Amino acid sequence: MKKISDSTISRLSTYYRTLNRLIDQGVKTVSSDTIAEINDITSAQVRKDLSFFGAFGKRGLGYNTEALKEEISRILGLKKTWNVALAGVGNIGKALIDYEEFRKQGFIITALFDRDEKKVGKEIKGLKIHHIENVCQITREKNIEIAIIAVPAKNAQDVVDQFITCGVRAFLNFAPITIKVPPNVQVKNENMSIELEALSYYLTQNK
Amino acid sequence: MKKISDSTISRLSTYYRTLNRLIDQGVKTVSSDTIAEINDITSAQVRKDLSFFGAFGKRGLGYNTEALKEEISRILGLKKTWNVALAGVGNIGKALIDYEEFRKQGFIITALFDRDEKKVGKEIKGLKIHHIENVCQITREKNIEIAIIAVPAKNAQDVVDQFITCGVRAFLNFAPITIKVPPNVQVKNENMSIELEALSYYLTQNK
Repeated sequence: MKKISDSTISRLSTYYRTLNRLIDQGVKTVSSDTIAEINDITSAQVRKDLSFFGAFGKRGLGYNTEALKEEISRILGLKKTWNVALAGVGNIGKALIDYEEFRKQGFIITALFDRDEKKVGKEIKGLKIHHIENVCQITREKNIEIAIIAVPAKNAQDVVDQFITCGVRAFLNFAPITIKVPPNVQVKNENMSIELEALSYYLTQNK
Repeated sequence: MKKISDSTISRLSTYYRTLNRLIDQGVKTVSSDTIAEINDITSAQVRKDLSFFGAFGKRGLGYNTEALKEEISRILGLKKTWNVALAGVGNIGKALIDYEEFRKQGFIITALFDRDEKKVGKEIKGLKIHHIENVCQITREKNIEIAIIAVPAKNAQDVVDQFITCGVRAFLNFAPITIKVPPNVQVKNENMSIELEALSYYLTQNK
């Protein structure tokens, strides 16, 4: 399979959501035009993205919604659930524990970590907060494959390094800092003010 | 000025952060190679992005960090502060009120809205929670230009429509739904599980 770009992967996630909604509405087939219109992109882009992994709609009929959803789900690795650790149980961490979209897509937060002695040992939604010192033991016990980093910027690199020593290779980072990792480890950054800056750009250029 | 792509804008935000950190460390000039290395992209990409708006480093000297930061700040509209409304004071909303990165980049949450009568009238961090019915009055009083949507998916389109009738043209949407808006309005979606799906893809393809 060809190397697929990050932006294609992110659009596949979007198509996956579109297909879920169409299936809920009882729609059996869908054209690239319709997928494109719902998501405000060109239908050529949709066809190109889907052709990467050999999904081709039938001329005049479009794509079978169930089959395409299954295919995207397989590509994205959503056929299984993932055990996810959350490091940092502050405001953002607490919001993420309640974020239903994670669970709906198969990302289950099964371990909580913090370094604040006042929080360690307490429970949130039935999950015990562990000290970050015990990260390897808990990561092994809970079979953690992905860690969400919601700790202060100054601790983020340390915490990621600790998870890496325990074999975790995938991170979603909320700390406003660039995390350095070896080539076999993947970090995705969730910096919420970057999207606001794109809006600020838009408003500035379109006064 | 040429039309600049969303991904270039998002990289400008990243360079802006890099420059801030370098300036804090006392660095006066920086090469495209260094900016590239810090952010794990190619230096050709950095040069291309910066050339869009006429910023050129001096051969062998690189970019003046202060001047480049000022230039990016101007392009992104970060020379002023923006008054931001937050609709939906649930867990995500509360986390966003405390999210320091927004304030640091000049996005100041100055109005809170909810439709839950138990929340309306209460205060969080000195900000009163208003009923969404009063959106136009408050938006005018507080000179709101950007709204963050952190309400449940089923209410998100309604709430955005209400803000649009009051003249708000820029939205950061946390609800897991595609919002329809007229062409002169911009919506950026913050769907946090899309980044997790990219990680799931990575782990699936690199077992």
